[in-house]
Formats: sequence, structure tokens, C-alpha cells
Amino acid sequence: MAPAKKGILERLDAGEVVIGDGGFVFALEKRGYVKAGPWTPEAAVEHPEAVRQLHREFLRSGSNVMQTFTFYASDDKLKNRGNKLSFTGAQINEAACDLAREVANEGDALVAGGVCQTPSYLSCKSETEVKAILKKQLDVFVKKDVDFLIAEYFEHVEEAVWAVEVLKETGKPVAACLCIGPDGDMHGVSPGECAVRLVKAGAQIVGINCHFDPMTCVKAVKMMKEGVEKAGLKAHYMVQPLAYHTPDCSCQGFIDLPEFPFGLEPRILSRWDMHAYAREAYNTGIRFIGGCCGFEPYHIRAVAEELAPERGFLPEASEKHGNWGAGLEMHTKPWVRARARRDYWENLKPASGRPLCPSMSSPDGWGVTKGHSELMQQTEATSKDQLKQLFDRSKSQ
Amino acid sequence: MAPAKKGILERLDAGEVVIGDGGFVFALEKRGYVKAGPWTPEAAVEHPEAVRQLHREFLRSGSNVMQTFTFYASDDKLKNRGNKLSFTGAQINEAACDLAREVANEGDALVAGGVCQTPSYLSCKSETEVKAILKKQLDVFVKKDVDFLIAEYFEHVEEAVWAVEVLKETGKPVAACLCIGPDGDMHGVSPGECAVRLVKAGAQIVGINCHFDPMTCVKAVKMMKEGVEKAGLKAHYMVQPLAYHTPDCSCQGFIDLPEFPFGLEPRILSRWDMHAYAREAYNTGIRFIGGCCGFEPYHIRAVAEELAPERGFLPEASEKHGNWGAGLEMHTKPWVRARARRDYWENLKPASGRPLCPSMSSPDGWGVTKGHSELMQQTEATSKDQLKQLFDRSKSQ
Amino acid sequence: MAPAKKGILERLDAGEVVIGDGGFVFALEKRGYVKAGPWTPEAAVEHPEAVRQLHREFLRSGSNVMQTFTFYASDDKLKNRGNKLSFTGAQINEAACDLAREVANEGDALVAGGVCQTPSYLSCKSETEVKAILKKQLDVFVKKDVDFLIAEYFEHVEEAVWAVEVLKETGKPVAACLCIGPDGDMHGVSPGECAVRLVKAGAQIVGINCHFDPMTCVKAVKMMKEGVEKAGLKAHYMVQPLAYHTPDCSCQGFIDLPEFPFGLEPRILSRWDMHAYAREAYNTGIRFIGGCCGFEPYHIRAVAEELAPERGFLPEASEKHGNWGAGLEMHTKPWVRARARRDYWENLKPASGRPLCPSMSSPDGWGVTKGHSELMQQTEATSKDQLKQLFDRSKSQ
Amino acid sequence: MAPAKKGILERLDAGEVVIGDGGFVFALEKRGYVKAGPWTPEAAVEHPEAVRQLHREFLRSGSNVMQTFTFYASDDKLKNRGNKLSFTGAQINEAACDLAREVANEGDALVAGGVCQTPSYLSCKSETEVKAILKKQLDVFVKKDVDFLIAEYFEHVEEAVWAVEVLKETGKPVAACLCIGPDGDMHGVSPGECAVRLVKAGAQIVGINCHFDPMTCVKAVKMMKEGVEKAGLKAHYMVQPLAYHTPDCSCQGFIDLPEFPFGLEPRILSRWDMHAYAREAYNTGIRFIGGCCGFEPYHIRAVAEELAPERGFLPEASEKHGNWGAGLEMHTKPWVRARARRDYWENLKPASGRPLCPSMSSPDGWGVTKGHSELMQQTEATSKDQLKQLFDRSKSQ
Repeated sequence: MAPAKKGILERLDAGEVVIGDGGFVFALEKRGYVKAGPWTPEAAVEHPEAVRQLHREFLRSGSNVMQTFTFYASDDKLKNRGNKLSFTGAQINEAACDLAREVANEGDALVAGGVCQTPSYLSCKSETEVKAILKKQLDVFVKKDVDFLIAEYFEHVEEAVWAVEVLKETGKPVAACLCIGPDGDMHGVSPGECAVRLVKAGAQIVGINCHFDPMTCVKAVKMMKEGVEKAGLKAHYMVQPLAYHTPDCSCQGFIDLPEFPFGLEPRILSRWDMHAYAREAYNTGIRFIGGCCGFEPYHIRAVAEELAPERGFLPEASEKHGNWGAGLEMHTKPWVRARARRDYWENLKPASGRPLCPSMSSPDGWGVTKGHSELMQQTEATSKDQLKQLFDRSKSQ
Repeated sequence: MAPAKKGILERLDAGEVVIGDGGFVFALEKRGYVKAGPWTPEAAVEHPEAVRQLHREFLRSGSNVMQTFTFYASDDKLKNRGNKLSFTGAQINEAACDLAREVANEGDALVAGGVCQTPSYLSCKSETEVKAILKKQLDVFVKKDVDFLIAEYFEHVEEAVWAVEVLKETGKPVAACLCIGPDGDMHGVSPGECAVRLVKAGAQIVGINCHFDPMTCVKAVKMMKEGVEKAGLKAHYMVQPLAYHTPDCSCQGFIDLPEFPFGLEPRILSRWDMHAYAREAYNTGIRFIGGCCGFEPYHIRAVAEELAPERGFLPEASEKHGNWGAGLEMHTKPWVRARARRDYWENLKPASGRPLCPSMSSPDGWGVTKGHSELMQQTEATSKDQLKQLFDRSKSQ
Repeated sequence: MAPAKKGILERLDAGEVVIGDGGFVFALEKRGYVKAGPWTPEAAVEHPEAVRQLHREFLRSGSNVMQTFTFYASDDKLKNRGNKLSFTGAQINEAACDLAREVANEGDALVAGGVCQTPSYLSCKSETEVKAILKKQLDVFVKKDVDFLIAEYFEHVEEAVWAVEVLKETGKPVAACLCIGPDGDMHGVSPGECAVRLVKAGAQIVGINCHFDPMTCVKAVKMMKEGVEKAGLKAHYMVQPLAYHTPDCSCQGFIDLPEFPFGLEPRILSRWDMHAYAREAYNTGIRFIGGCCGFEPYHIRAVAEELAPERGFLPEASEKHGNWGAGLEMHTKPWVRARARRDYWENLKPASGRPLCPSMSSPDGWGVTKGHSELMQQTEATSKDQLKQLFDRSKSQ
Repeated sequence: MAPAKKGILERLDAGEVVIGDGGFVFALEKRGYVKAGPWTPEAAVEHPEAVRQLHREFLRSGSNVMQTFTFYASDDKLKNRGNKLSFTGAQINEAACDLAREVANEGDALVAGGVCQTPSYLSCKSETEVKAILKKQLDVFVKKDVDFLIAEYFEHVEEAVWAVEVLKETGKPVAACLCIGPDGDMHGVSPGECAVRLVKAGAQIVGINCHFDPMTCVKAVKMMKEGVEKAGLKAHYMVQPLAYHTPDCSCQGFIDLPEFPFGLEPRILSRWDMHAYAREAYNTGIRFIGGCCGFEPYHIRAVAEELAPERGFLPEASEKHGNWGAGLEMHTKPWVRARARRDYWENLKPASGRPLCPSMSSPDGWGVTKGHSELMQQTEATSKDQLKQLFDRSKSQ
């Protein structure tokens, strides 16, 4: 609102905590506006009121960053999503920018234009082709004058570096996030080395988003930080993890868990898990702290409440939330009132209510799955060779 | 929209399936608009856009009933909620009616005015006093001309009968739900006997809402139905359960679980659990099928998708949802595409990702809790005798 | 040893606690002397030293009763056990009596001759035939002059009554145990009614053994006691449950759990669970307290240690066991020494170390099992009709 | 029996599988002859029949090695065990040798004299003092002419090397086992480096025993093998792990788990788990395969049955055990008969029957435990400084 709204780098340079937003794709899927599978963001055009409302809830919960709802909105992705859309990628990207800006203006938030990995890269297109695809989204972000840019959800640091190179041309601050864990990217490059390459390519902020649970992501960002510092470089750090507990997933993250994406409910983090996450991220030296798939507004609020002492204020939505359960003091049952205290919630080990279910799963995936040949038959659309090529590309080098 | 919209009894008499909506209080708490503890619905006045959006999501998901967001909006409750509100109960109730009507007009839904149990009853006020409190909310519903009335969330059939008697005076159809399980109400009256009393008091629809998981609630409604039929009476049946698995709760329901209300995440039902629930409810002869605390729009959509063969159509939000995971056919990973089939999701036993947590808890509560005397000290606001009296009232007779 | 050793009824009439022994069949299966499937006790002849040693361990642990190792040693059972044995049922029964007597003489224990349900009953033989089979085992017990008789592991009270009638002819005290839970016998006769029939048939001691976990068995014996008292009769009560947690089994008990009999390990009770069981059994008014399948010597010792205040002494084996973990005071690690206290062990919720496993199973069995027809094929030895007849016999009436 | 019985090195050099025995201390604790805490083996004198019987059960189950029951039978340990014993260490060691030899003569087994870590080392005694203590036990083994020697259960490779040096003086074959996992010994020496030092000190067989579950121990022995091979050395390998699942333990192993030692029941491995272990150990190139704490005779039998194709014969106790559950073909219930097949048991995920318990624990221990200062008070016997010194010794260097 005020002309004096500080930029992302000003904030981070000053040591401020910047709180990100949560996961639009998963939240809007549950609200009925995004289709799981293609995961494309046409809702920005089709149902702007739903996207606006979710932006607003994150803003109220403490977010300083409104990411444009442009995940998987590159033209090559939109073309492959199955049934055709009646509007162009440019229209979606523009609508998303307008919605983010509208709500950002209602509070102390910046607009970040977001790009992510492309089907073009995964199908072995050239650097030129991949960069051209990314450039198209970027043109909209420049036209709509977003405050900064985020390249996120990249499984391969090679493609992420290409993205940073494209984004840097705009002159805007650039953040870059991989969706990897402590084992590194899909080509086996370690988090530390990945971060060094991204910083060298020009990213001012580097980090991790999606694919793993908060503590795993924080650990991987810590490895990034150590790599960058060891290389004598400088950067700011960000983390936007899942809101799902994933102690059992392998290097590709929650995609490989049998519960992805329609049976993840028992893994959802509580608000108290978020307190622990926010504190750990802060202690690790990360200052841009947000969320990805599974994060609902109350999760972001919990991050903001945990870091209220550092930030000096509570988010607006805390009007409707007592500190560490204090609101329960008004409950009608005395034994529920007895839960209005921090140590109660910090020590609770919440039950699943599912005695027939285990606490961990075996991740599956190509080569791990027993029904390999059966899998081949079920994916007739793609030829065996194409699949094999795709797989080799993503698993080895 | 059309003047010819059929009434609730017309629908049920014709054997149609009526789909209810989900839980506003819990959903809006997570979105940042309701305070856990007091649980009051002032958001209808403070943030109408948030309430409207949630109504709309349930409508898109298949709901035929927009319940006014008036839970705990009786004057005695609003007075006791801790910090004061700057508007009256009448204002809240009126705003809630307008929002429900606005969205109902966007599709094939009716508006139901809702009342629930009162603090006045729990603190032993007389029948006259309790009825007067309920009457005040009712005046608004009559003025706003809601389509029918629901008395819900009553732990004692005695108070529910009083509520039905008051609601009947309006001449509108009346539904009555207790928040009990197969063990009956807090005075030990069986579900069958409870239902008989409610029908005799004039309720045309009887059932259960809140406090227990879907299968438990369906079981209790089945007992109601058997009671009514054995008494030679007639009624329609409804069920609006929790979206949490609660195999471990005692007669007072999920309130007594240690996870209530801030650690319930691992218990959240998946959409596939909802398919099983909808089918079971339908097979039991229940035709008004909805949800209560924990139900998000995608849960209601799952109910509507399961009953699509009976209803003859899919809800609007199914545009963004493949049947039994069919949308995954567009996923980039072949092993995720292999999950695009019904038997995969029906047989999945989803892991909690929480190996340090159990699958069940011991419900606590007065007299069960070891720290009884400690509890007394923590609830100094209320004198020992008052608490005891309250407790005796709710536990025994 | 002393000629003045008190009889079983003298002890119970005097209000003494009588501690039973544990489960020979399961313990000796793990030691390599009994074959799971046929479960027959030929080890009494083949490897007397192994049987003697187990008797001795139970004696040292506090048992007052040495049950002859004659489970499933009726002639009809031995004939059906697959590969033939080179000695007769009489030889097995005699050897078992001698071993029990030899060890009983080493301490304050009585010898109990045991019979159990017969294949003859399950294959619909007449009362006369079934009684003749039981009579053959009994002849040995009379010849060897056991101190009293136990008819145990009967699924149908009808057959148990026949057994009591046969045993009564010896003039020795008779105890009778069914292997049922609170839902009653396989014909649906309630525990209370079962107990009444057994008492009327002449049993002086009635109770439950095997098939369910300790707390479930105690609950069922409580129902027996209430039934007997309501009928104005008198009896002593005994309980010899499994040493496995079985909260998930249906009316046929642990046989139907998918883990039976080779995957029950995670369900084994700890010694501390046994303390709770012994106390609950005692408080329920049961005075003959022992164990069945899964009970190892240390489980019986725990029962004896819990009831040491009532009995006035500790068992011999407590020489090698500190009270409530007190022996850990000598451990080399300080944090293990810190576990040498009662509240530590009473409150421990022991982890399974199996994160891929659930905490409960779905019992299977005829009609429940999906693979019903597959099951039929796998059991070719028996014709469809025979199986059906067998099943109807055991499931309905 | 025959004078031609082959020695341990002859067998291993010939590529034969040598099967070890199971855990005497834990098995005899449950049978009532060993006290948990001091864990000393005086039963060899006090109750020889119990020790002999356990040896015999392992022999019948397939063991080729009778380890003398001399764990913690060094004089310094026996002195510190709390209440005094009425016989000397030499008497215990001699009796244990005689029992092992007696049973070894009944079949194809060798006698191994065993020594383990000493309190002297942990309390910082000199190399000379520690060696003198070990030498005393050794004198008995020489006098009794055991077939070979095993130094096992050492947490520090330094002490193990001293032990090997002492044992080598006898001229007998020497095996050396550490009780460590993949993280190495308590001073942080890696498994590979530990093995190299032991081989250089003269051990012909090196490996791991106790403290971790089978798969973890096999993994650590694999690291030993790789270290030895990389150093251009040669050795035979052995493994004798716990029979408890311990995915959650830290570097000190199961001692630090809250369930140690009286709540480990839910972690006990099934016989089918043992099949997987035996195969994995064999595939890793380990040829001396046995067990430690928790291994009962049926566990060893399962190892012998899995490796029967390699060995060419089944153990004696398999007379009482059908291959992969085949004995169930004789069961009375058809649905239990349907379990008489390998894939049923291989795929079973056995439930714990404990819905209130988690699947994993947090290991505790010094510095991890919250109640650190409380712990100090509970261990008054030892002064703060002594404890600190002890701890520093074992945790760091």
C-alpha cells in the first residue's frame, strides 16, 4: 500500500524474518478448483474469487509473500494436461498476477512471480528450448511488474540454473528452490553443490521447496548453507516444505509414497509441529520461511506465532487463536480447559485413529515396484522406449 | 433460483438423496476466522467473504443444504465467549441467513436455520428460560424466511425435545440431531428412545451429528430408525458426522480425546473413507447425508460422487476431480499413473508418517483423568462446587 | 512333598490364591518338541527331559498346579495328526502323569489331569462316542492318581458338560474351562449361562482358558461369576488366558487372527502386563490364576510377584528377579539404572520396532475371508459338504 | 562324538555354513535362572540341568557351536554383582565348560570358550590389569580344552584387540566380535577399521554380536569385510545379532531404548524374519551365523531351515516343524489350513495388538535424557565425577 514497502532483499539484508505463503495447488484441490494429476492453475481465470480468498487467508495468517498462482502454467504443460482449456497460458499468468497484487496491497506483502520445472526439460529438449518456454511466463511477470521472482520445484539443478539465468535478465531479485532432500538432486548433485551453482548463476536467495517434510527440508537447506559458505559465497536462504510427515520417503520425495496424492491425510502436520519447524528453520539461519503442498492458512499462522517474538508482532488471524491453545480456557468442559497450556500440546503424541494402518510405508516407483511389467501395460499411451528414456534421464546420468 | 425449488420434505418423501454441507466452525478455524474455545460465528458479520466462499465450495461439491452459520449464536453463549463482540446476536444471525440464501440461490440448495444446545440448559436453567433463548434465534430465521430448521448438537434429548417444540411453532419443517453415539445421550437414553421422543415432539427428520466418526454415527442412526419403526412411527433420517476417525472415544465423543481440538490431523478421513461412509449411510436408509466438524469441500464432493449413480449427476466440482483417481492418468511419473484406479485407493492402508505416535488414545475427562485434583486447581475461575454440579448434571442422573 | 499337602478345594475354600502354570504346547513348540498344526504332546515320551524342565521352571516361578502334558492326547486326535506315532495314547498320558508328579513332589504343587475338546464332537459323533473317548484318557488319570481334573479348551458348552459328567464319575474335584470370550460359546450361549450349566453338571471350579488376552478372559469369567451368583449357585473361579494381546479378535479368538500361530511375536505380553492382569483377576474374585498359550515361566513369576502380598511369599525364581526392575540398580549404564523403579515400567508404552506393521488386524475365517472359493480349493482333502457341515456346526445352531 | 569332528577353521575354510547358538542370558532370565542387571552366569553351578537343557535345544535346532555359558564371568564382574555368590569365578567357568562339552558330544558341535568386555576396562584400568582379568578365565578354557575361543561383546576395539592378544597365546583359533553398528565403536572407529585391527591382532574370524537387529548387524559386518579386503587381509566373518527389531536405536544399541530390558516383547523377531536374516547374512559372505539376546531355539532352527539347501540337511528339531508353516495342513479350521504356504508368512505384516503404543521409541541416555539432574540424584552410589568420567570415556575421545 505504502509506497515505502520494503523489497525482499532489503528485508533479508536487514535480518528480518520473511514469511512465505502455503500450498495453493493442494489447498485449492481440496476446495474443488484444481484437478489432481495435471495440477494446472486455470482457476485464476475460472474462479478468481477462490484464489483471491486463499491469498487473503495466507495474508491474514502472516505471509509477506503472495506467490502468483502460476504453478505448471508454462505453455508446454498446459498443452499436455488432457482436456483443453479455453484460454491461453498468458491469460492465466496475467490473472494470477492481478490477484496476487490485489491482495498484497491489502497488507505488508510482496508479489513473487513463480516458475517451475518444465515438461520440456524432462523430455530432453535443448537448453534453448527450455529457456524459451520459461521466458514466455516471465514476459507476463515483467509486464505486471511483480516484486521478485522465484524459480521453484526443480528436481535437477541443471534446469534450475537455466531458469535462474533467464530470470536474472529481468533485473529483479531472484530466489531459486529445488525440490530435493539431503541426498541431492536427481542426478546426484549434493545440496551444497547445487546451492553453489545457483548462487553462481545469480540467485540471491536459495533453498528447498516441496517433496519432503519440514525437518528434512531444513536439514537440506543447512547443507546448502554450509556449501555456499565453504565456497566463500554469500546468499539468503529460504524453505517451503510439505505439511506432511514423510520419514519414509526415498530420494524422489512424497511422490513415491503410496499415499500420494489422495491418502496423505494421516501425515498432515499439526500447528504444533509447525512451531517446531519454524524454530528449527530460524535457528538454522533461514529467514524466508514458508510452506508448500499441504500448508493451510493455520499452518502459516503457527509459523508466524512461533516467530512473533523475533518479528515483534502477531498476524491478524491470531485474533482468532489463543497462544498455545489459550482459547480453550473458554471451553465448556473442565478437562478441555485443562488443555489450554503449551506443554500439553508440545508433548502430545497424536493418535491416528487407524489401528489397521502402519506408521510408515515403503515408497514405490520404477524398479522398486513389483508389478513392473503390469505397470508397462497400464501406461500404453507412452511407448516402452519413451518411458525407459524418461526414467533413465531422471534416475541416472 | 427457480420458484419451483423443491422443499426438504418433498425431496425426502420422493426418495431423493439430499446432501448436507460440511463443518463451518472447524473449516473456518483453520482459515483464520473462528476462535477455537468459544467457537462463535461472528465471522458472518466480520468477514462475510470468507463465509460466503465456504458456502460456495460446499455448493459446488454437491450440497443441497446451506446451513446458516449460526452455531453457538445464542445470546447466552455469545455473552460467555470471553472478549466482547461489538455486535448483537441478532446481527450475526441475520448476516448468516443472508449469506446462506445468497449462495443457495446460485444452485439447487435450500437454506436451513440452525440452533444448538445452550449454556443455559447446562447450567440448569428452566425449560422456560431455555426455550426463550432458542426463540430469539428463531425470530431471525422466521424473518429471513429460511426453508427449514435444524436443531442439532444436543447432548441431552430433553433439551432437544424443547428445541423441537419451539421450532415447530414456526410451521416450517424441523430436523433434529443429537451429538450422541450408540450408547445414547448423556442421561443414558438410548438412540432408539431418543428418536421416538423427537418424532413425537414433531421432528420430521431425526438423526445424529458431530462427536463420532461416520461409521459410528451411521450405526447410531440405524438404532434410531429401528426405535422409530418399532414404535410404529415414521420419520426421515439424517447423519452429519465428524471427518475424524474416532474408534477410541467414549460416550462423550471426540471432545474427550486428548487430541481435541488441535491435534486431530492424523485422524482426518480421506476421500475414499467418505465413499465408504456415503454408501453405508445410503444402505442404512438414510437419505439426508452430510458432514460436521472436519468435513472440507472435498469430503462432501466424495459423498456426492459415491451417490452419483443414485442422484443421476455429478457435482460441479467433479469437473476438477477424476473418478477414483482417474486424474492421475496425466501424472508425469509412470508409477503414479499406475494409481489411477479404484482398487488401489480402496485397499490402501495409509501410513501416519508418525512412528513415535500410537494408533489410539485413552479418552480423558473428569473422573477418568489421573490429575483430577490438579485439574481442579487449573480451573480456579469456577468454584469446585459449580464444576461438580456441572459434571454431575452431564454425567449422571 | 509332605503328606499333608492341601487339596485344590481345601485351598480355594480357605481363600488361598492358587497359581496355575503356563502354556506347554506353545512353549515346547518354540523349544523344538511340539509340532504346530497337530499340536500333540508326544514329547512326554520322546523327550521327557524337556517336559520335566518346563514343569520345573513353572514350579520355580510359583505354580501350584502341574497340569499333565496331555493336551490333544485323546485317541481320535492322535490318530488324525498326520504322520503316525510309534506309541499309544495311553503311553503318552501315563508318561505325562509321571513327569507332572515328579516335579510336583519337588514343591508345593498338585497334579491336575487335563482333557480337552475332541475331534469326535466336531465331526458330530454322539454323546456316547464322545464320552467314551474322554473316558479313555481318564482311566490313566485314575490309575496314576492325579490330585484333580481339568476339562479345558472347549468351544461348546454342550461338550464341556459331557466332559464334566464323565470326570465327575472319578470322585475327584473337577474344574471346567471354556475357550470363549464375552460373546459366549460357538452356539451363542452366554458366559453366565455356560457357567451355570457347568456348575449344575458338577464342576466345582469354572472359568476360561486360551483364545483371548488376559483382560478379555477376566471379563468373561466375571460374567460367569455373575451368572452363577444370579442363579443362586456357588463355585470357584479360574482363568488361564493367552499371553498375547488380542483386542482385535472376533468370537473364535486368536485362531482367526492372521498372525496365528507363527506371527504372534509382537503381541506377547510383558511381565508388567502380567502384574496388571493378576491384580484384575484377583479383584474380580478369581483365585485360581494361571496361563495358557504364550505364557512362559517369567509370566507366571510376574503373577506370583504381583500376588506376593496376598500369598505372603515370593516364588523361588524371584531370587533371580528384582522387584519391579530393581535388579537394574546394578546395571553399568546410569540411564539404565534410572529404570529400576515401578512407575517407569508401569507407564512404558513399548514400541513394536515395526513401523511397516499396523497395531491391529482384521480376523479372517469362513465367510469373512474374501478368498472363500480359493480356500475351498486349497482344502481339497475334505469335500465341500463336509466342510460346510463342520462350519455350520461350529458357527450356528 | 567321533574323533574326526572338524575344527572351526577347517569348516570355514571349506566354505561350510557354521550355525551359532542363541542368547543364554536373556533366555535363562525368562526361564528364571539369570538376574537381569548383573546378568551373571552362576546358573552353570546352581542349576546345571537348566543350562544343559538350553544347550540341547540349540543343538537340536541346528547349532554347531556350544558357547560356554561364561558371559560376564570375569572375576571383577562377579565381585560387583550386588549380593555375593558362594562360589568362585573359576568354579562357574569350569562348570560351564563341562556342560557345553557334554551337549556338544551329543551332536556335530564344537565348544567355544567365551570372554567379553570387563568392568576393569570401563573403569580405566591399565592394559596389564585388563589382560590379567581375561587371562584368568582363559586358564579354565585351556584346562578344559575348548575347541576355539570367542572374544565378544566389546564396545571398544581397543579392549577387543587386547583380548585377542591374550586369547592368541593359547594357540587355539580366535574369533572376535564387537557389539557395534554401522557407526562404529564407542570411540568412533569405523567397522572396517575395527576389523582390520582385530585381524592384525590375530583373530581368524571377526564380526558383530548383540546390540542391534539382524539386518543392521549384517550391514556392519559387510563394512568389516570391505575394510579387511581393502586392506589386503583375509578373515572369516560371523554375526550373532539380537532377535529384536531395533530400527530406532542410536549408536549404543538397544541398551538405550526405553524398552530395555523388560519391555522388548513387541520387538521380538518371528521365525520368518529369521529366514530373511539368514539369507541376507549368507549372501553377504558371512558363514558363521548365529544369534545373541532374544534368540530362542526356534529362531536358530529357522536359520538352519533357511540354509538347509546350502548345508544339505535339516536340523533335528525340524521333525517338529513343517517347512514354511506346512504343519498347519493338519489344523482343524480350514482358514488356518489356508495359511500353510510360504507367501502367506513372507508377506504378513504382524500387528502388535497394542493400539496405545507407538512403533518406534526415542532412545534415551546421558545428555539425551531430559531428567539429567534427576538421574544424577538417583545414582547416588556413584559420585557425580565418577559418572562423568565413565561417560566421557565411553562417549568421546
